[in-house]
Amino acid sequence: MTGMSGFPELLPAERNVELHILDHLRHVFELHGFANIETRAVETTDALLQKGEIDKEVYGLTRLNVTDGDGDTDLGLHFDLTVPIARYVLENAGHLEFPFRRYQIQKVWRGERPQQGRFREFTQADIDIVAKDELPFHFDVEVAQVMAEALGGLPVPHLTLQISNRKVLEGFYLGLGVTGSPVGPTAVMQVVDKLDRVPADAVATQLGELGLTEEQVTSVLALAEISTADTSFVERVRELGVTHELLDTGLAELAQVIGSVRPVDGVTVVADLRIARGLDYYTGTVFETRMAGYDQLGSICSGGRYDQLASDGRHTYPGTGISLGVSRLLVPLLADGLTSDRSVPSAVLVALVDEESRETSNEVASLLRARGIPTEVAATAQKFGKQIRYAERRGIPFVWFPATERGDAQSAPHEVPGAESAHQVRDIRSGEQVEADPDDWTPPIDDLAPHITEPHT
Amino acid sequence: MTGMSGFPELLPAERNVELHILDHLRHVFELHGFANIETRAVETTDALLQKGEIDKEVYGLTRLNVTDGDGDTDLGLHFDLTVPIARYVLENAGHLEFPFRRYQIQKVWRGERPQQGRFREFTQADIDIVAKDELPFHFDVEVAQVMAEALGGLPVPHLTLQISNRKVLEGFYLGLGVTGSPVGPTAVMQVVDKLDRVPADAVATQLGELGLTEEQVTSVLALAEISTADTSFVERVRELGVTHELLDTGLAELAQVIGSVRPVDGVTVVADLRIARGLDYYTGTVFETRMAGYDQLGSICSGGRYDQLASDGRHTYPGTGISLGVSRLLVPLLADGLTSDRSVPSAVLVALVDEESRETSNEVASLLRARGIPTEVAATAQKFGKQIRYAERRGIPFVWFPATERGDAQSAPHEVPGAESAHQVRDIRSGEQVEADPDDWTPPIDDLAPHITEPHT
Repeated sequence: MTGMSGFPELLPAERNVELHILDHLRHVFELHGFANIETRAVETTDALLQKGEIDKEVYGLTRLNVTDGDGDTDLGLHFDLTVPIARYVLENAGHLEFPFRRYQIQKVWRGERPQQGRFREFTQADIDIVAKDELPFHFDVEVAQVMAEALGGLPVPHLTLQISNRKVLEGFYLGLGVTGSPVGPTAVMQVVDKLDRVPADAVATQLGELGLTEEQVTSVLALAEISTADTSFVERVRELGVTHELLDTGLAELAQVIGSVRPVDGVTVVADLRIARGLDYYTGTVFETRMAGYDQLGSICSGGRYDQLASDGRHTYPGTGISLGVSRLLVPLLADGLTSDRSVPSAVLVALVDEESRETSNEVASLLRARGIPTEVAATAQKFGKQIRYAERRGIPFVWFPATERGDAQSAPHEVPGAESAHQVRDIRSGEQVEADPDDWTPPIDDLAPHITEPHT
Repeated sequence: MTGMSGFPELLPAERNVELHILDHLRHVFELHGFANIETRAVETTDALLQKGEIDKEVYGLTRLNVTDGDGDTDLGLHFDLTVPIARYVLENAGHLEFPFRRYQIQKVWRGERPQQGRFREFTQADIDIVAKDELPFHFDVEVAQVMAEALGGLPVPHLTLQISNRKVLEGFYLGLGVTGSPVGPTAVMQVVDKLDRVPADAVATQLGELGLTEEQVTSVLALAEISTADTSFVERVRELGVTHELLDTGLAELAQVIGSVRPVDGVTVVADLRIARGLDYYTGTVFETRMAGYDQLGSICSGGRYDQLASDGRHTYPGTGISLGVSRLLVPLLADGLTSDRSVPSAVLVALVDEESRETSNEVASLLRARGIPTEVAATAQKFGKQIRYAERRGIPFVWFPATERGDAQSAPHEVPGAESAHQVRDIRSGEQVEADPDDWTPPIDDLAPHITEPHT
């Protein structure tokens, strides 16, 4: 990786890893019937600034060197894919079928200060299911299941998908008597949400400062400590002795998600009542995801249910979804050595005997490509040793030596002088070289594409 | 298509067409061993404004609502993928293998006035081959061949790839005596380049105003009229009686490209000496592409050789490449009715008998997905007729009816009451419904993905 602070750029071998990840995500999302869309990079600044808490991080657009007046525009770059999908759904409601199940993989931008070392441009992969008026709860289970399957196939350390439900937290706080005077449940959630960055005793102090009694603080922190990989969290919450109707609803919803998601290799799904999500707009299920060994990244995949994703006065569009921070996950792994074994897609380099026979080499390449084998032809007719090193430097596993007219001293004794020699192909990793027919030779299927090479395997 | 002027956004069925095109381009580029990269969306305004002629079209970035000073940045959005690749090559020269053969498919932005109805955001697909110091000429043939093959597989009207060579034009003009006083070859090329938008007599007038004699104007226009699908253009140029060493070089180069590119269905490759490309930086081969029936679009795929793509003082990096305007080509075709037959990737909708049996339907879907069949489960347990219409509206071709416990009046007389009925799958296009096993049924391979539906076929 190289480049301007906050704008990571990948070298070709690294980009192969990103492509592998993006292809896998797309494959899983499409297997589950999610439709792809892209939205424009820009939204009106009004739409972007409605979410007050991040307005300092938005890039606005100007038109440079406009000579006939002001270059200002009322446009800015989107900082997530949620503002855009809400706007897209409203604009296209008459043309979409609801529930609208979509995935979207795009760059987003945040006008962070360069010195903070944060990303200013990064790729997100979002899935959301948006309904008109009513969104059945089983879709919360579905987005968790689909994202778990998507995460499970990635070449990354073990992931933990942490699921909570704002109704559990809000109902519990209401049951505790945190009912708005002096402090309401949302303010408490925003403090509890800091538990992954701030020690528990500091959070306790902040909750006390909000006006909670010592007993309430103890209960709030006890709830936040509950994390189970099955539905036993329900009993543990009950043991805290707090009751409220909203708590009952939340526990039933969360138990339905935790009890329904099928196991996926590489991903542990847990109910984790520390997860609150600071943002107001979540109304039920919330998701976060931690990657083993990378706690400092915080959550790399987050989301939840919004009962009011969008509204046009006549209809409300509730949504539920999860957003994967592809760059957030990938860039640190690349820095730690995750890469691929090629800087090109080519599985075969066709060697060049001399510049006059380039057409012969092109013809071989063309036959191989017709069978789906990525192939390039040597750039120049250097000595074969140099052409092999040309392949080695790019990670190309096979070098093809085209058949040539031979009448020279190199002919084997049993060959008729002037007869055509055979095509040969060498696996330059093993050195094994065999005769091959360009009309039917094919490499092992595993060698058709670059391999991802993980640092710790 | 919908949305803000200049920022086209696609509906899901239209996006399927775009995905089909992008997948095909990637497939062809990778078969030829081109490595993929992406560059950041931003470049410094200095880098962007070095190409003086388009400075009014560049979007600059500001940081909105910065409270501690000026929100200006020295960044703008890239308006093509050539400025970025030149910068990327210089920054990463020590990590790249040359010749560096890369493709890049990204959005670019131009700060056009909204009222002009031009694209302000659009997708380009570029291939370039960049060398260190020396770039053999055969790479000009290669980029033409690769792009012709990429274009050939697209669901679009017939394309004509027009190839010319600046050395032919410049050498011819020099041979005519257009040697810089009062006017040089570049100024003439910039006028000749207008021939696709301005009538020939108006071009003649402009050439006269530049200071060319009537005889020179006649010869310049005669050269521009030469267009051949084979190398016979060489003879036709010779017949004009102009000689110059640079003309000889240019004719030999252009003949090599035209004579070497293998035929591709759907694409005619021609030598067309009207093609000049107005931009200074091309130094030899130049490319443009017209789509039949869409002359008003101008060239939808253009490029050429730059002997000075980039330079760091120690090394020069010459390049040759072509850029396809994906949005430029796609958006008008979508407006004319090109689309796909699905708004979702799903090949199968698994019906839901009742909400209690959702797990049964999920299990069927999971078995189908495990064999690579995109599958979704009905959102609600409506009557089967409504579930079939749910599939129809999305273009999903198959509806799966899961096996159920039957002990009711609907059981066929020969069935044992309470025994499990068989799974059935219906092709809702033909109405044909058959028993099927979720462990081995598979749709025709052609139905796995959406079909592209062309308006005129």
